[in-house]
Amino acid sequence: MKPLVRILLGSKSDMKIGDGIKEYLDKLKVPYDFHISSAHRKPENTVNLAKDAKDEGIKVIIAVAGMAAHLPGVVAAHTTLPVIGVPVKGPTLTGEDALYSIVQMPTGVPVASVAINGGKNAAILACQIIGASDKKYSDLLAEYKKELAET
Amino acid sequence: MKPLVRILLGSKSDMKIGDGIKEYLDKLKVPYDFHISSAHRKPENTVNLAKDAKDEGIKVIIAVAGMAAHLPGVVAAHTTLPVIGVPVKGPTLTGEDALYSIVQMPTGVPVASVAINGGKNAAILACQIIGASDKKYSDLLAEYKKELAET
Amino acid sequence: MKPLVRILLGSKSDMKIGDGIKEYLDKLKVPYDFHISSAHRKPENTVNLAKDAKDEGIKVIIAVAGMAAHLPGVVAAHTTLPVIGVPVKGPTLTGEDALYSIVQMPTGVPVASVAINGGKNAAILACQIIGASDKKYSDLLAEYKKELAET
Amino acid sequence: MKPLVRILLGSKSDMKIGDGIKEYLDKLKVPYDFHISSAHRKPENTVNLAKDAKDEGIKVIIAVAGMAAHLPGVVAAHTTLPVIGVPVKGPTLTGEDALYSIVQMPTGVPVASVAINGGKNAAILACQIIGASDKKYSDLLAEYKKELAET
Amino acid sequence: MKPLVRILLGSKSDMKIGDGIKEYLDKLKVPYDFHISSAHRKPENTVNLAKDAKDEGIKVIIAVAGMAAHLPGVVAAHTTLPVIGVPVKGPTLTGEDALYSIVQMPTGVPVASVAINGGKNAAILACQIIGASDKKYSDLLAEYKKELAET
Amino acid sequence: MKPLVRILLGSKSDMKIGDGIKEYLDKLKVPYDFHISSAHRKPENTVNLAKDAKDEGIKVIIAVAGMAAHLPGVVAAHTTLPVIGVPVKGPTLTGEDALYSIVQMPTGVPVASVAINGGKNAAILACQIIGASDKKYSDLLAEYKKELAET
Amino acid sequence: MKPLVRILLGSKSDMKIGDGIKEYLDKLKVPYDFHISSAHRKPENTVNLAKDAKDEGIKVIIAVAGMAAHLPGVVAAHTTLPVIGVPVKGPTLTGEDALYSIVQMPTGVPVASVAINGGKNAAILACQIIGASDKKYSDLLAEYKKELAET
Amino acid sequence: MKPLVRILLGSKSDMKIGDGIKEYLDKLKVPYDFHISSAHRKPENTVNLAKDAKDEGIKVIIAVAGMAAHLPGVVAAHTTLPVIGVPVKGPTLTGEDALYSIVQMPTGVPVASVAINGGKNAAILACQIIGASDKKYSDLLAEYKKELAET
Repeated sequence: MKPLVRILLGSKSDMKIGDGIKEYLDKLKVPYDFHISSAHRKPENTVNLAKDAKDEGIKVIIAVAGMAAHLPGVVAAHTTLPVIGVPVKGPTLTGEDALYSIVQMPTGVPVASVAINGGKNAAILACQIIGASDKKYSDLLAEYKKELAET
Repeated sequence: MKPLVRILLGSKSDMKIGDGIKEYLDKLKVPYDFHISSAHRKPENTVNLAKDAKDEGIKVIIAVAGMAAHLPGVVAAHTTLPVIGVPVKGPTLTGEDALYSIVQMPTGVPVASVAINGGKNAAILACQIIGASDKKYSDLLAEYKKELAET
Repeated sequence: MKPLVRILLGSKSDMKIGDGIKEYLDKLKVPYDFHISSAHRKPENTVNLAKDAKDEGIKVIIAVAGMAAHLPGVVAAHTTLPVIGVPVKGPTLTGEDALYSIVQMPTGVPVASVAINGGKNAAILACQIIGASDKKYSDLLAEYKKELAET
Repeated sequence: MKPLVRILLGSKSDMKIGDGIKEYLDKLKVPYDFHISSAHRKPENTVNLAKDAKDEGIKVIIAVAGMAAHLPGVVAAHTTLPVIGVPVKGPTLTGEDALYSIVQMPTGVPVASVAINGGKNAAILACQIIGASDKKYSDLLAEYKKELAET
Repeated sequence: MKPLVRILLGSKSDMKIGDGIKEYLDKLKVPYDFHISSAHRKPENTVNLAKDAKDEGIKVIIAVAGMAAHLPGVVAAHTTLPVIGVPVKGPTLTGEDALYSIVQMPTGVPVASVAINGGKNAAILACQIIGASDKKYSDLLAEYKKELAET
Repeated sequence: MKPLVRILLGSKSDMKIGDGIKEYLDKLKVPYDFHISSAHRKPENTVNLAKDAKDEGIKVIIAVAGMAAHLPGVVAAHTTLPVIGVPVKGPTLTGEDALYSIVQMPTGVPVASVAINGGKNAAILACQIIGASDKKYSDLLAEYKKELAET
Repeated sequence: MKPLVRILLGSKSDMKIGDGIKEYLDKLKVPYDFHISSAHRKPENTVNLAKDAKDEGIKVIIAVAGMAAHLPGVVAAHTTLPVIGVPVKGPTLTGEDALYSIVQMPTGVPVASVAINGGKNAAILACQIIGASDKKYSDLLAEYKKELAET
Repeated sequence: MKPLVRILLGSKSDMKIGDGIKEYLDKLKVPYDFHISSAHRKPENTVNLAKDAKDEGIKVIIAVAGMAAHLPGVVAAHTTLPVIGVPVKGPTLTGEDALYSIVQMPTGVPVASVAINGGKNAAILACQIIGASDKKYSDLLAEYKKELAET
């Protein structure tokens, strides 16, 4: 099936968060592709992954990054698709550096931030965005919501 | 036209943020409805506005709140639609109270946070979410993006 | 004996804090009941536990939650009983997210916050609230206070 | 009528917060007395106001203080009554100094903190504590809650 | 030799900090006495240790406390001697709660704060205070300063 | 004279900071050019200004931005020249959002951060960088340092 | 009378804090001298003022500084006298930058920090330090403490 | 080869950060010397290392320090060379104390701050500063940048 969500990781060290995203997209049956591409170390590649997403049928981009977490904002600058940012706690501060770098975007270029290390919620939010216009996914979400209440 | 976005304000004192949201939804031609309904002072009303949204054709909910900003989370608990939270700076702290209360949601119930006082970006993000499945809005966004680069 | 205090946990992962509350309510001989019920994952159940508390003879509700800790506020929205909130330190920030989400309530719907991870003090405070109108508990507290000074 | 609530202000400069407390206790018909007594500048007087409160029929103490806001904790050390602390924003930091000084009490001596500058909620919480054992006040609170939903 | 410094610990759990103070007072040959006495759990005892210090020949009081660290401020309220506060990092926040509770004292009742967990520096500062009027200790400090530069 | 420093502003609203940079580069006789180019709203233009700088004889780039201040990092991703970032205090938080977004860069792509709103120091630092290999500018700096000591 | 306290200001812009120090030293009859000398702009002069203080009969140094407030630490590095640091709130952050720069000194070189903008308390603390070995000043402090309780 | 970079460590405990700097300067073939010299414990030595650097052919100084991290600022006060500061996370706070002490320098005496614990980036930045006027190093950086994109 063609991917509807594009996952971008700023660094291989954020793989654990990436795995949480995949786990929940799998659970909700949302097809995705997955790339590691730093906004700072591989900027051209990152920009292309952002620019091409829409024409490739992607509906939401999830970008994961820690510290001065520019990845989601850089991606958002190059697409009109909704971009979800996942701030990652780094080795020194408590994650507020990544959170501020992701959430405090200037007017005109929004990023949708979820919780620090909140990869799983990014997956659910991506499914909600797709589900807003696709009954298949909103039904899957309704089922998941019931399941959630029962655990 | 039937509203596609529902705006919820936690308090009349956040009206200025609400006006920014309306201004940008108008600019992007996204139809919306608008309610003031506190999560704490009018909980039943708030829950109903969340629960009924999907059946009324709403595709995204924007919830605006300051201090212990529970409104977006409470709304998210009662819908499978994507919920955008706008944290508002209050009279004492610098807005991090509202930001944390909105963005730090537990696994299973995401809220998409934008910047503190970032109502305009919430409007654009809502349009992006709708535009992900509706060419009309993604075209409007593409135009807006060009305009943005020219200012 | 009929419970006078209702303990609500937002998540099973906060069980250690819950155990501290029970330990101190036991020590002060205050009868209680205990529920795990997330404000976001099981909102109806949570609301009912709040709404019914007063008629069931409960005098104080203790609500424990981490991250965007909405549980105490959601409970307070549905009862006129005093609600004590216990913020829990989560895996990323240092607990200030939960503290702000609990303590920064808007005018009209107070929550009484104790220290981060301060479950034991929530139990003592609950006993003080009951003891304000019931000599049996205020005597038990007076004894405890002496004991405290001797350790 | 004999006072049921004792209000203590750490400094005359917090009078505006004190007025908010009075306004809401008046609205809820809770009788109170009122004192300005710094924990640091008039320690003996403060300790006596705490120690004597219970025998004078007081059921709740509200203590208001800014900066290194020790007043609520010092009061709590000398009584078994529930003590509500109101942190006040000072001229430099954003109020988190007073909040931490009030809420982070050690095990054994709880203080119930409300929001920064949250005097009105301290009044409502005091009424809830009294109302937990006195139908007159819980009825007044039920009325107030309705009124709140209607504004 | 009669003690010149009084060390007060708010809790046995701060013993490691207390040991650092003793080590450095020993190194600088400053005689001291040592007490564990919580401001909240043993307030009378604490007040007496503060009040009597001057007449017993004490010249500086060092007070060590974590969380809502009121001990140094409570001591300062009952003496005209200089009081050094040592904020201790607790189990949740990063120590800024204790720091603010110690350093943000209101006009009229100063506390001299050293670094978080900075017990050793409290000992040196105490020696500097005594050495300001006693050549024996200022000579010992001059020697220590040389030693420091050589390590 | 050909410019040695390139100044980039993320937004016209940061003009006051930009003026401080110009004032100090003028004072130190460092030739510069000046552009307003948002990393998010005009990404291609911004990238080109970064990429072309070296070949145009620029030796240092100063990038000024507030909130999620990505501009300096985006510039640094596209050049091997030293990039100085100036974080700007925005309307809600106290400037720590911009500071973290600028200073917390990942290994491989450094940005040199100066103080929040510290445009003047960015100018001096740029001159120091040029002066490290150009006696003319290091002499001008030596003079400025004397002048500074005399004010 | 020969000065017993040396006041150092890092910048003319902190004059208001300097005036508060003078006012309180005058009130307590403590003789002082006063200098404006930046640790960064006039380092030699600052070092000399620190080094010579002891031989000139000074017993305490008060150093006032904002932002990266190095002045008190630099002074403490060059004297064995007790050094009191007064952190000053600057134009961007809320004063925590100056507080951390003053209070977080490494082992071996303590600085006694008072509250942000707490110049008056620095004066009182200086008097307490002198009064620890000089009855005249401890008597003046005892009087002041009474006066304080009466206001 | 004569050193072009001088590395200064405030304390032996920061050796791990120092090793990261050396590793990257070696990788980029930049010759350096290395000193441990505290700004507070060995102030004269530190000042001399700063003052003499320029005449010894040094082009950039990297200064590493934690807590009240004055070392970079003290060095900057005594040279017109560019000074890079590396804030180090200490045992209590999360590194923001060192960051603020380094980055918040007053006008006239800039320090270039990199990320908390960002020693490797300090090395790259030093190479960029030298490379701005020396093709050999800018070529090495161009190669490194390619390598970075390939990892």
